[in-house]
Amino acid sequence: MRVRYRVECAANGIDARAQALAVEQSVEMPVEAVRDSRVLAEVVGEVLAIDPLPGTPQRFDVVLALAAETVGDEPGQLMNMLFGNCSLQPDVALLDVQLPDAMLDRLPGPRFGIDGWRAAVGAAGSRRALSCTALKPQGLSAGALADLAYAFARAGIDVIKDDHGLADQPAAPFAQRVPAVQRAIERANREKAQAGGALASHRTLYAPSLSGGPQRLAAQLRVVRDEGVGAALACPMIVGVPAFVELVRAQAGVPIVAHPALAGSARIAPALLLGRLFRLFGADATVFPNWGGRFSYSRDECLAIARRAREPLGAHAPILPVPAGGMSVERVDEMLRHYGDDTLLLIGGNLLAAGDALPQRAAAFAARVARAAEPAAR
Amino acid sequence: MRVRYRVECAANGIDARAQALAVEQSVEMPVEAVRDSRVLAEVVGEVLAIDPLPGTPQRFDVVLALAAETVGDEPGQLMNMLFGNCSLQPDVALLDVQLPDAMLDRLPGPRFGIDGWRAAVGAAGSRRALSCTALKPQGLSAGALADLAYAFARAGIDVIKDDHGLADQPAAPFAQRVPAVQRAIERANREKAQAGGALASHRTLYAPSLSGGPQRLAAQLRVVRDEGVGAALACPMIVGVPAFVELVRAQAGVPIVAHPALAGSARIAPALLLGRLFRLFGADATVFPNWGGRFSYSRDECLAIARRAREPLGAHAPILPVPAGGMSVERVDEMLRHYGDDTLLLIGGNLLAAGDALPQRAAAFAARVARAAEPAAR
Repeated sequence: MRVRYRVECAANGIDARAQALAVEQSVEMPVEAVRDSRVLAEVVGEVLAIDPLPGTPQRFDVVLALAAETVGDEPGQLMNMLFGNCSLQPDVALLDVQLPDAMLDRLPGPRFGIDGWRAAVGAAGSRRALSCTALKPQGLSAGALADLAYAFARAGIDVIKDDHGLADQPAAPFAQRVPAVQRAIERANREKAQAGGALASHRTLYAPSLSGGPQRLAAQLRVVRDEGVGAALACPMIVGVPAFVELVRAQAGVPIVAHPALAGSARIAPALLLGRLFRLFGADATVFPNWGGRFSYSRDECLAIARRAREPLGAHAPILPVPAGGMSVERVDEMLRHYGDDTLLLIGGNLLAAGDALPQRAAAFAARVARAAEPAAR
Repeated sequence: MRVRYRVECAANGIDARAQALAVEQSVEMPVEAVRDSRVLAEVVGEVLAIDPLPGTPQRFDVVLALAAETVGDEPGQLMNMLFGNCSLQPDVALLDVQLPDAMLDRLPGPRFGIDGWRAAVGAAGSRRALSCTALKPQGLSAGALADLAYAFARAGIDVIKDDHGLADQPAAPFAQRVPAVQRAIERANREKAQAGGALASHRTLYAPSLSGGPQRLAAQLRVVRDEGVGAALACPMIVGVPAFVELVRAQAGVPIVAHPALAGSARIAPALLLGRLFRLFGADATVFPNWGGRFSYSRDECLAIARRAREPLGAHAPILPVPAGGMSVERVDEMLRHYGDDTLLLIGGNLLAAGDALPQRAAAFAARVARAAEPAAR
């Protein structure tokens, strides 16, 4: 593995600092005390490059070679070897990683990818962008959330996700909420088919938020399967990367939206974590805070996430970037211009804020997004 | 829940910023669009206090009241509601949380605590400090690690943990390594009993590193039980808090050491995360980087972690702070002076660096730590 870190350090100390980092992220002990020659030759991390950053004398890009065998093919252990201990060292940030082909092949990656999403919403063969919204606020009953979902689905929204704060709380327990919402969405889908017109073949997908420990996750996945739910959402940094891979990716059987909750505090480049690693762990779409909303990611960071989500990566399918976080219907054109049509646009609160006009605003959002790739609009 | 955040913000914007944070960590949508009166009254977060920090005009402590019902008793969801979305906002750090008694009671907490550790090493009734070391480097074979463990156990070290980088790699797969190391330690324990003297009743514990997804964790826990292993180690932020609680805490049946890998990057106060939350999630001991080693925590931060690990907390037992990270035998007296005897002192690389003198240095370390609470030494 070639791993790139950003290290803050005085120029006269960077050689030693880089070497210490290579040791920290491999054998984690004084190298002179390593007596095994194989370990010295094959396991101790190696400094491949130290690149000064122009104009910032105290910052360097340090590239390490870390042994793939230290990962042993386990995604959690990959996180550990990339950033476990040095997450505790505030002078280090993780920027990028190149994985050997064999490891890339063994990581699960997305099962559905961008084409899978389009097929699932009844837009197979189209190149159009997709629309997404969120059920909230938490605290509403399952019935109230289902009513909301019905309105969104009837309006032609492609993907309706649970707010990531919806877990298994008493106000709307998972086992009540998910069947109620799914049935409301199916009713809306049937009505669209009966009504004919632009939405006749449209199918809204529901992505309930999976959370909790392995037993709870397993029970929730049973509900997803039993109810014929069409997608799912999970927060890899909260359920844990290993459970995300082993339960959510392996067993959901539907396209997966990864949510970045608890992921932002890490000094890991968002494009790497949300764009590449979450994709390798099995996400089919990755939510991130768009610039100009309630969060502070820059335009460059956001576009880098989108690039990483879609660029060639071994045999893994591209996935949908999901810019979100305080977006508005008025910004749809701008966002599509920047992100292109291989994008799932997420607008939550701005639709809810329409009050009684929610169905109209949601329909305008969905239509604007769906129209983007129609020939007349190009 | 009363939650304290540090917010960086201009003074004329802090009221709005605090209110936005209360919304972000509860309903996550425009409050004016929340139509349900119960949600408005009971679920939307509330700003309880905004305290300017003396001498730093752009920094405030913001105290929020967040509804316990948003957590629904699930530890991962607790992390989500405390710091899920605002982890993506670099102007916010999580400092502290007071949980309602009912939630405190329902969180698992440590099963063994400090007394449990002392009983397990054959020091029941003593008030002495405990010693810990680590098996490393990764890349060694199971047999080589077992030889190392034998030497440490024979020297009277209380707890021998796997390096947190040891997972399930080909060089020493868990199912080979753990039985080999456990048997080596048992042999050393028998020999100490037969030899008599100061270590006649001493029992070294092995804490293998548990990692991976739920299935792999379950298989590893079976090995722990089948082999009669006396402790276990896990990284809550890598396996995920929910899996840590539901598998490691609930099923290990032995004292648990929590390791902070991947936890340091969070803008969460270390005393809260490593001292209080890991304890509430079930850790019996919590590793953190001591000051003056390879990491940058301050003395105050380290002592705050230790305080949080041991202070009264509902019905939960106190747990052992484990200062670590580049410690040396020469610092034992200083560390015990600062931390007191309810402490598990961890020295890894410094013992290994002794080379052929490892048994002697390990014995000196173990004896110095164990001696601390003997009457003659007080």
